[in-house]
Order: sequence, then structure tokens, then C-alpha cells
Amino acid sequence: MNPKFGNSPKFMPEKLKLHLIVDSIKECGNEINLIHLNPDKEISEGLAYVQEGIAKIYGINEKGLKINTDLVFQGEIFLVQNGNYQSRDNFYLEGLKYSKIFFLPLDHLSSIQKEFLPEIQMKFYNERLKRIHQQKVRNYDLELHERVFYLLFDFCLIFGKASDAYYSMPNFFTHDELSNILRNCRQNITACLNELKRDGIIQYNRKEIKIEKTIFEEKKVKYLSGLKKTKK
Amino acid sequence: MNPKFGNSPKFMPEKLKLHLIVDSIKECGNEINLIHLNPDKEISEGLAYVQEGIAKIYGINEKGLKINTDLVFQGEIFLVQNGNYQSRDNFYLEGLKYSKIFFLPLDHLSSIQKEFLPEIQMKFYNERLKRIHQQKVRNYDLELHERVFYLLFDFCLIFGKASDAYYSMPNFFTHDELSNILRNCRQNITACLNELKRDGIIQYNRKEIKIEKTIFEEKKVKYLSGLKKTKK
Repeated sequence: MNPKFGNSPKFMPEKLKLHLIVDSIKECGNEINLIHLNPDKEISEGLAYVQEGIAKIYGINEKGLKINTDLVFQGEIFLVQNGNYQSRDNFYLEGLKYSKIFFLPLDHLSSIQKEFLPEIQMKFYNERLKRIHQQKVRNYDLELHERVFYLLFDFCLIFGKASDAYYSMPNFFTHDELSNILRNCRQNITACLNELKRDGIIQYNRKEIKIEKTIFEEKKVKYLSGLKKTKK
Repeated sequence: MNPKFGNSPKFMPEKLKLHLIVDSIKECGNEINLIHLNPDKEISEGLAYVQEGIAKIYGINEKGLKINTDLVFQGEIFLVQNGNYQSRDNFYLEGLKYSKIFFLPLDHLSSIQKEFLPEIQMKFYNERLKRIHQQKVRNYDLELHERVFYLLFDFCLIFGKASDAYYSMPNFFTHDELSNILRNCRQNITACLNELKRDGIIQYNRKEIKIEKTIFEEKKVKYLSGLKKTKK
């Protein structure tokens, strides 16, 4: 605990609060790859921290179909708690390829950490809702190959590292995963990826995704400029 | 402020915290029906409280299409803040028919209220994410008439009042709204509603929605029993 703030987290900066929680998770937490979010028995409540990569949240419906519902990004914390999902469908949190997740039971947190946990959590929940909403609106009437491109583009905004000609990131996804996220069949996704590769927009293999630098930066300006030109 | 808890909200029960915030909104807030969530200018940060009915959150994309992204239910609070949406698409919060929304600027809250706001908010954000996820999984491979039924059923779980033969609730929706929520055309939605009416499952007019009591209770047991029978 930083002595400057004593026992009151009231005036502690948010960054420090997050830091204190993440430190505890890294020190005392266990690496885990799959968490059942609504088991029949009592759940072990705690924090799942995505240290590297991406975790997906998915449900398995009555017929055994897996449906992706959400993604938790690197650096984000998900609160595993009773009542997370009240459904007879089973929900899970699972790390994607090249991803690392740590889990810390809630009772390892100090009372002060517990006190500022909601403030830290709010930020991450807000981010997740924002992503779901913004993608839904932006993707509403796009062609599939555009939706594939913008999905990879969104990830590259967060995970992409710039080199001379490309932004590159680890390929966390299988074609199956992409087809599930975009709710389309694997064959169509593969065709779109091939089209994007053929046009020189992306490079894509099992290990890595690269987006051509000028295209990436042009889209970035277009989509994140805050210039809204909605037609009435 | 309840004198029992003095100036520290630490041991105050969550219900009391919510009560204290809602009271301030009702006393000092203004009724409002539409809030632009990402205007070009600085936003007036504050709490939107759905006192009656339902508020929808929607975006308007480049081509002027309205796309519903979320619903905020009666009794829930939405935090309007800068950075809620970082997109060139415009996002709005708007009350549906028969609904009442109050807005209170953040600077009307006391420092103690601000301190426990994240805890209160977390609950509502969690509920919204849960609804989005659970509906996505449950509806994934249902026929449209089933999806229409379950949408009305979900609302009836919250807003429905039991009478001898029916659960009834105000009809907050136009056919346009339902078609937007279910991402299908109005003609198909109307056909499904007619089918459900013809089969005696629901009654539906502009003012009211009724679901036949035995059907409602049977579905309620089936969907909320916590009995999960996922096929492997």
C-alpha cells in the first residue's frame, strides 16, 4: 500500500488503484485458461485478468452450439461472480491462442482493494459495452469482407505494432473463431481473408496478422477522428 | 444522509446507496426524453434514470440508418459521460412510449454519493451485459416467431402484472422498434405477432401486451429454473 494515501483510497489516482489490484493478481493469482461462469454449484468468485492477448466469453446453447458473446482484451479485468449469468445455457470465459489469463479469488483482496474495485471494474465494463455498441452500428450494413477487415483493424488498434510497411499483431484467432465472432460460415470468412490478402490489404497466417501501414493509418484517421458526418 | 453511517459509505447497504442516489435524481433532476451521447461539443455529464418504462440506446450510422444497441430498464441508471462513445456514428439515449426518464448533472451529487456511484453502476452495467449475452445465445438458432415471443416474454418478466388469465404490460414498442431490436423487417415482425395472436399465445395492441398465464409460467420455469441441460 502506498503510504501517501494511508488507509483511505478516496484520493488515490485511478491508475494506482488499478496497479495495486493487478499486482496482487500477478503475485498471488493462478494461470487459468477456462472458467465456467455459471456452474450448478457455488462459483469461486474472483478476478480474471487478461495479462496477454484476448479472452472470449461464449455460451453453449440447448443444441450444443457455441456462440461468442464478448471479448475481454489484454489489460482488462473480468469479475467472476455468482449471478453473472442466470440462464440454463452454459457460459464460459476462455483464453484465445497466445493469450494468458490469471485468476485471483476475491478473498485474497484487502478490504481497501475491494472498496475501489467497482471503480476499476466500471471502466472495463464500459469499454466492453462501447465496443459491442459501436461495432454493431458500424457493421450494420457492411459487406462481409469489410466486416472481416474492420474486425482485424479493431484488434490491430490495440495489439498492433508498427514496422516500416505494416502494423502486425499475433494471430489470436482460428478461422472458426472469426466465423463465430462474425456469425458467418467458415468458408465465407476464408474467402474474405483470401480476397483481402490478394488485394494486398492484409497478410494473414496462423501466427500473425499484418495490415498494410498506409491503409491502417488512413482508416484510423477516418474512424477515430471524432469527426461525425451522419447524414440526416 | 442517514446519520447511522455518518460520512463513510463503507458499511452502508447497497440498497440504501441506490435509494440516496435515486432520491436526488427525482428531487433535483429534469425530465428528458432524448440525450445525444457523443455530441461534438463537451457533454453535460450526469445520470439518466429510467423512472418508468424503457430507454433505448441507438446509433445512427453513416448512411443515416438507426440501429438499436441496448435497452435500459425501469429502475436502472445510465451514466452519461465524455468518452461514452468514440465513434463518428452518433449515439442517443431515448425513452420509448409510456416511459419517463430523469436526468441529473453529476455536479449535483455530493462527494459521498459520487464515492459509491461506481458500485451502484456496476450492478446495472452487469445486468445490461448479461441481457445482451444471454439473449444472443438463447436466440441464436430460434425461428423469428420464437424470437418475437421471447423478446416480449423477457419484458413481461420485468414489467408484467398478473391477472386471472394473463400477464400484461404497457406496450412500449412500435412494430418499427421491434423490427429494429430483432434486426428483421417490419412485415415479418407483424406476421409473427399475428401468428402468436392467432394461436392465443399473446394479445397485442398499441397500448398493451398480454401473454397467456399458463404459457408464461411454463416458460418462466423452463428458462429461469437454473436447470441447465446443455448437450455435449
